[in-house]
Amino acid sequence: MAQKATVVTRENIKMREKTLTMETLNPQVKAVEYAVRGPIVLKAGEIERGLQQGQKHPFTEVIKANIGDAHAMGQKPITFLRQVVALCSFPELLESPSFPEDAKVRAGRILQGCGGQSLGSYSASQGVDCIRRDIAAYIKQRDKGVPADWDNVYLTTGASDGIVSILKMLVSGQGLSRCGVMIPIPQYPLYSAAIAEMDAVQINYYLDEDHCWALDINELHRAYLAAKEHCHPRVICIINPGNPTGQVQSKKCIEEVLHFAFEENLFVMADEVYQDNVYSTDCQFHSFKKVLYEMGPEYFNTVELASFHSTSKGYSGECGFRGGYMEVLNLDPEVKAQLVKLLSVRLCPPVSGQAAMDVIVNPPLPHEPSYPQFHEEKSTILGALAEKARMTEHILNAVPGIKCNPVQGAMYAFPSIFIPPRAVEEAKALGMPPDMLYCLRLLEDTGICIVPGSGFGQREGTHHFRMTILPSMEKLKVLLEKLRDFHIKFLKKYSSLEELER
Amino acid sequence: MAQKATVVTRENIKMREKTLTMETLNPQVKAVEYAVRGPIVLKAGEIERGLQQGQKHPFTEVIKANIGDAHAMGQKPITFLRQVVALCSFPELLESPSFPEDAKVRAGRILQGCGGQSLGSYSASQGVDCIRRDIAAYIKQRDKGVPADWDNVYLTTGASDGIVSILKMLVSGQGLSRCGVMIPIPQYPLYSAAIAEMDAVQINYYLDEDHCWALDINELHRAYLAAKEHCHPRVICIINPGNPTGQVQSKKCIEEVLHFAFEENLFVMADEVYQDNVYSTDCQFHSFKKVLYEMGPEYFNTVELASFHSTSKGYSGECGFRGGYMEVLNLDPEVKAQLVKLLSVRLCPPVSGQAAMDVIVNPPLPHEPSYPQFHEEKSTILGALAEKARMTEHILNAVPGIKCNPVQGAMYAFPSIFIPPRAVEEAKALGMPPDMLYCLRLLEDTGICIVPGSGFGQREGTHHFRMTILPSMEKLKVLLEKLRDFHIKFLKKYSSLEELER
Repeated sequence: MAQKATVVTRENIKMREKTLTMETLNPQVKAVEYAVRGPIVLKAGEIERGLQQGQKHPFTEVIKANIGDAHAMGQKPITFLRQVVALCSFPELLESPSFPEDAKVRAGRILQGCGGQSLGSYSASQGVDCIRRDIAAYIKQRDKGVPADWDNVYLTTGASDGIVSILKMLVSGQGLSRCGVMIPIPQYPLYSAAIAEMDAVQINYYLDEDHCWALDINELHRAYLAAKEHCHPRVICIINPGNPTGQVQSKKCIEEVLHFAFEENLFVMADEVYQDNVYSTDCQFHSFKKVLYEMGPEYFNTVELASFHSTSKGYSGECGFRGGYMEVLNLDPEVKAQLVKLLSVRLCPPVSGQAAMDVIVNPPLPHEPSYPQFHEEKSTILGALAEKARMTEHILNAVPGIKCNPVQGAMYAFPSIFIPPRAVEEAKALGMPPDMLYCLRLLEDTGICIVPGSGFGQREGTHHFRMTILPSMEKLKVLLEKLRDFHIKFLKKYSSLEELER
Repeated sequence: MAQKATVVTRENIKMREKTLTMETLNPQVKAVEYAVRGPIVLKAGEIERGLQQGQKHPFTEVIKANIGDAHAMGQKPITFLRQVVALCSFPELLESPSFPEDAKVRAGRILQGCGGQSLGSYSASQGVDCIRRDIAAYIKQRDKGVPADWDNVYLTTGASDGIVSILKMLVSGQGLSRCGVMIPIPQYPLYSAAIAEMDAVQINYYLDEDHCWALDINELHRAYLAAKEHCHPRVICIINPGNPTGQVQSKKCIEEVLHFAFEENLFVMADEVYQDNVYSTDCQFHSFKKVLYEMGPEYFNTVELASFHSTSKGYSGECGFRGGYMEVLNLDPEVKAQLVKLLSVRLCPPVSGQAAMDVIVNPPLPHEPSYPQFHEEKSTILGALAEKARMTEHILNAVPGIKCNPVQGAMYAFPSIFIPPRAVEEAKALGMPPDMLYCLRLLEDTGICIVPGSGFGQREGTHHFRMTILPSMEKLKVLLEKLRDFHIKFLKKYSSLEELER
């Protein structure tokens, strides 16, 4: 049968038109853009396959600094987390003497919470009960005693899933009452992608690059008032610590945002997946929840707030497990039932990801046998990230035409880059943003894969790129030096003599 | 801080109105219904918690026959699958003598395909390359040599995720050109929920209960022509083996559907997650792909077909891993790029679920050490399911007022039930469908949780329920006997004397 199949004539193919074409495709899908896995990254994949097949390039390896994927960059998993997941996956190991008791206790407890004591059962749509309780306990401890109700906690498939679910609840209306979503610029492109997919209105508020990417409350007011002319702003999204911009928000600034949301009746979405990634000793992570509570009952009993966390970042970097949770405050009880209904259609988040999340919020305690190794692994990873954050800033700022704010937190540098007018013109002729041309040439010359700033949004006329600080210290140093040499070459190639002398 | 928080007055609460209320909620979210985890199931959860707290009920245990969740009903995991997942999760076990070599080889190969050889890295959005290749090889073998290109295979987060993604691509248009999606009635409510969420038009085609829930091609034509008056039918969804109806489609019927889709330019979505669950010796699973190929190049080079599979069903029943894949044929290349873009926003399916999927498509071979145990476990599970399918049909058909088609495949019985007019009236007065009243009373009387037929759709005036055949043989027998007794009691309670004597 299959053999006969290969005889195909042009006529055959023409007989039926395709149902799904670029013309008939859902226009909201067409409008979606996601630079973190966009054209530069696709090109990097091509080059990588070429290298494997023996193609010649001026380099021997593609270095992917495009995505916050710690393990892919060589970071080792936290042993305790993997022990618990392995025990849950294959409970016969609970009898094995080579696994520590504290890991067994945690695994046993998680399995108790699963139907039939199996990771293979669906959990409740909100997640496994005991894991939700552990998360609530973690939040309470993190926030110095501010109460956390496990009924407000929902496990998710990575943080992205929670963010999209909450946005989906909020998006409604047509014309002037179309839902407006305030997002920072630069932003993590999940936000713009979800807004496009749901046909909501994206409202940009610009972070202040000159002040270390701070969120300026006046800029929020400006953006809000301008948007009110054509839509109904209903949500404000904040990413803290910032992605791609790496800033850590001050407590005062969070208060201002919450006061603004209170006044303007906005739903607050706080993307706090980098809460464990703070490197600058001048900065501290403040959760939106805790600051809200400190503002008093007028605020904490009313402001609708969803906060998101994930297994993918922090010191564990377990992206592949797709674990995450959200805590939702002050949701109308009927709306809450609707949220559960919406989540239930997808049945449940992956249960092994839920188990991984449990370990992150419930790590070994100082008196437990796994504590020394856990503590050692955690501080080594976070210490190295802090060092790499400083080195990245330092090396980049020494390059003429590159200016990089301190990487206070998260996993990325987002420097501004000078692109000579002739390169801007060339990019225009090629139909691409100037920083995409820059990243493309960098990739072709050096094998380094980073993401153009245009994929995250930036002020008109400025150019940036986002790179992760995740490669090993040695590799990151080589990467930064190659980048420096490329940048100088790029400037020379596209600058006139006068420009170079200026 | 937290202490002060508890002092709240009515005034405080009134100061700010909620942003997200039932009035402002996205109306498409409101329109979503998902009976498999609907009101009856929520009630069952309440009763279960009550029992734990010592509340008295006429039973000591809630039996959840509402959802195809094998492990929750006591089915044991396939050892080999869990060994591979545990090895992938904690690679130090690769050194352990207590794991078989073939499991180690598979785990090592999967890890080779992961960034940094870790399950904690993001995979490509389409899934891990080597797993996609294994799936293609499996499809080719299943379909007796029909070629399968791994580039057409996409890993998904359970089958649901793939189904929603493909629908999302297809849904577009307003008014007369609004996208119509043909679905069977009764259907699995993921379809109606996704259609509601995307604001597409649901086109019902009714399965023929009198002929063992067969798909009647004339009914397809009727539904299509009627729908064309008010929308643009673009997709036909088929569930084979059927959920909730348990029928296995004949090859002839599949040919008719494919011919119809060819003629009317419909995109075909074949939900084949129960492909390993065929119990009736008169039936055989035929994949839509294979039948399409047998119809010749005119068909197989043109008809756009997506087929879905999952780790959740079959003999493994690994629902919690959220593993699945889809194979997509004849997709326009530009549209394919759009699909990858859309999937990339959610980064990737859970990698441990991908690993589980790999084992299912690449199980131990007869010469490998794990084969005997694997084969024993698989045939025990499938044998028991077949026996339970027959017993369920048998016991149900012996009850007056219940009529059950043979459970040829899948995991459910969907019998029609006679509900006396007085019960119909009572349900009406309570504002619920008659079969929901029936299921509610059953739950309250016996602790048995099943789903009313109204949640899946059924012909006007008929009543059904869906129950799984997953409880252990002993428990299922008790369940069916309790159900029989309840049914007779229910009939007596609501029937007039004359009705009973008829």
